[in-house]
Amino acid sequence: MAGVRELTVNLGERSYPIYIGEGLLDEAGKLLAEHGISKKSPLMIITDQNIAERHLTHLETVLRDGGFTVTSAVIPAGEASKSLGQLEKLVGLALENGLDRKSAIVALGGGVVGDLAGFVAASYMRGIKFVQVPTTILAHDSSVGGKVAVNHPLAKNIIGAFHQPELVLYDLLTLQTLPEREVKAGLSEVVKHGLIWDAEFVTWCDEHAEQLLALDGETLGYALYKGCSVKAAVVSQDERENDLRAILNLGHTIGHALEAVAGYGELLHGEAISIGMIGSARLAVQLGAPEEVYRVTKRVLSRMGLPVRLPEHLDTDEIMRALMHDKKFQEGTITFIVPVAIGKVEINKSVSTALIREIVEQLKQEAV
Amino acid sequence: MAGVRELTVNLGERSYPIYIGEGLLDEAGKLLAEHGISKKSPLMIITDQNIAERHLTHLETVLRDGGFTVTSAVIPAGEASKSLGQLEKLVGLALENGLDRKSAIVALGGGVVGDLAGFVAASYMRGIKFVQVPTTILAHDSSVGGKVAVNHPLAKNIIGAFHQPELVLYDLLTLQTLPEREVKAGLSEVVKHGLIWDAEFVTWCDEHAEQLLALDGETLGYALYKGCSVKAAVVSQDERENDLRAILNLGHTIGHALEAVAGYGELLHGEAISIGMIGSARLAVQLGAPEEVYRVTKRVLSRMGLPVRLPEHLDTDEIMRALMHDKKFQEGTITFIVPVAIGKVEINKSVSTALIREIVEQLKQEAV
Repeated sequence: MAGVRELTVNLGERSYPIYIGEGLLDEAGKLLAEHGISKKSPLMIITDQNIAERHLTHLETVLRDGGFTVTSAVIPAGEASKSLGQLEKLVGLALENGLDRKSAIVALGGGVVGDLAGFVAASYMRGIKFVQVPTTILAHDSSVGGKVAVNHPLAKNIIGAFHQPELVLYDLLTLQTLPEREVKAGLSEVVKHGLIWDAEFVTWCDEHAEQLLALDGETLGYALYKGCSVKAAVVSQDERENDLRAILNLGHTIGHALEAVAGYGELLHGEAISIGMIGSARLAVQLGAPEEVYRVTKRVLSRMGLPVRLPEHLDTDEIMRALMHDKKFQEGTITFIVPVAIGKVEINKSVSTALIREIVEQLKQEAV
Repeated sequence: MAGVRELTVNLGERSYPIYIGEGLLDEAGKLLAEHGISKKSPLMIITDQNIAERHLTHLETVLRDGGFTVTSAVIPAGEASKSLGQLEKLVGLALENGLDRKSAIVALGGGVVGDLAGFVAASYMRGIKFVQVPTTILAHDSSVGGKVAVNHPLAKNIIGAFHQPELVLYDLLTLQTLPEREVKAGLSEVVKHGLIWDAEFVTWCDEHAEQLLALDGETLGYALYKGCSVKAAVVSQDERENDLRAILNLGHTIGHALEAVAGYGELLHGEAISIGMIGSARLAVQLGAPEEVYRVTKRVLSRMGLPVRLPEHLDTDEIMRALMHDKKFQEGTITFIVPVAIGKVEINKSVSTALIREIVEQLKQEAV
């Protein structure tokens, strides 16, 4: 069994801990109470159908045994649930179940659940407390840093807030039942955290791909601890994405556009940003970075079983249009995160759309 | 012509000025530029049909002449526009018009426009800049302090945020075309600011009711300056309503319930809280405050032409149920703002629902 690892996201008054370990769901009552979640006001667990089957009764029981009044809301699994319609339903449920300003929302699930539940918490009565209980590898990224949002038919994550959780409780046992494709997609963000910040960790990922894909507890615990540590370090320095935080978007400029054009669902987020990171690496080399940046990026992502080629049927014009709707497009230029070496990136605001188009075309020819 | 008055809402990094004066719309380009609104990114004016007819072309012209790229969105007038459906439409328009993270939303209108536009600004791309251009007397209250929200079918203002504007620009000339009923309803919040904070100002209101109702520029400018000053002082001490800010809710516990039960529209907000303030004064006297609290409250509100009696056809049970859905209801008790003297209130968390029910019944018998 992997021991419990703990780290802190340092944000002054809004600092919070992340706990990573096997069997942590059993400790949820104790940990929530220790971190100021009220037992006098009802709390609401938000989860999706798939996760509900596996873990909801467990978490409800632990929290009720701990003295909390618990109500639960189960949403359909999938990106389509990150909508204003779901927000309205969940707020209705919160009202009907008497949630008040001292109540908390507990997000039990992956990124979709965390983003939606987080925005419910951010906006219900203008903001109530919020706990992240991620159940996917991908969510090691989304559950840290306070970015919460729903989608608009025209753009992803466009309606949202910065709303930090009170704590993140990561039970590695919940990852054991993840489908293989989601495991791989989740590792995409783990690799990203290495690529932007920590060359040694990239090498470690490369060497431990097999154990990671096999969900070995101790290896996975370390990888998530490292991934969360990078995220926490970046967010601590720039909570509201004024500058540094943008580096977390490595691969996301192209990646988000691919998700939008493919229709949410065809490409998993981690898969889309894997292709996006290959694009960034290609761009980097064209802008003068060592060829190794492209080679290593491609090797480690391939080793994780992630896609590196852009599906040919996705229309380049549509991809370019989707790019213009991105939040990273501002005052007429797009912000692109470009590696300068493995473990080090730059924020580049002068990448031309013509060059991005070229990269998109190249990505359709990428050798796999 | 009334001179320009200026005051500051002190909130550290989020501090901002309020300008009050006749003809300030003409200065909008200059003032927005001075307060950091970008000319490189498009801005969007949000207003309603009624205000659009009178002031939209004027404001658009001034801002375009000032070098801004301006797009406008016109929503139906009325509380029903404070919905998630409108939020979705406005976000769509913002995307189509290329608003980015450096863009600003300008709210031109009363409380409905300010609350909705403010929530668009708070949530679009997780928060962009925002300017309040109030065009009603009531909005002297809602435009200061950063509370923004939309309604849910089950409760008012339940989905929202704290999002402070960059500046508030109050052109008294826009008030000249207000319908009489809205003038009166607006003065309700002016009086409230006196009742919670400044006995002298209550006396002044009592003495200047006639000039206020006649929309005399100098008198109105002073009244709004005083009202905004009280609001700013309270908000500066407690931005997120942890304690003190609750005093601004004088009359609102019953008032909000009346609005919900009457259906948004039958009672204007200012009318509902006028009745609510009479209720608070009655409650105060029953809890031991001098009888003068009730007498003066009723006199000054009556003098402003505001209702003091609760419409008999509103069902008491329904009113009580609506109270339980209020944000002020938490951890099993309701927070009630109770005057202890004119110009001074207390936050009381131990008012029983039985006593509130009694007050509601009395309010149906109130002599007019």
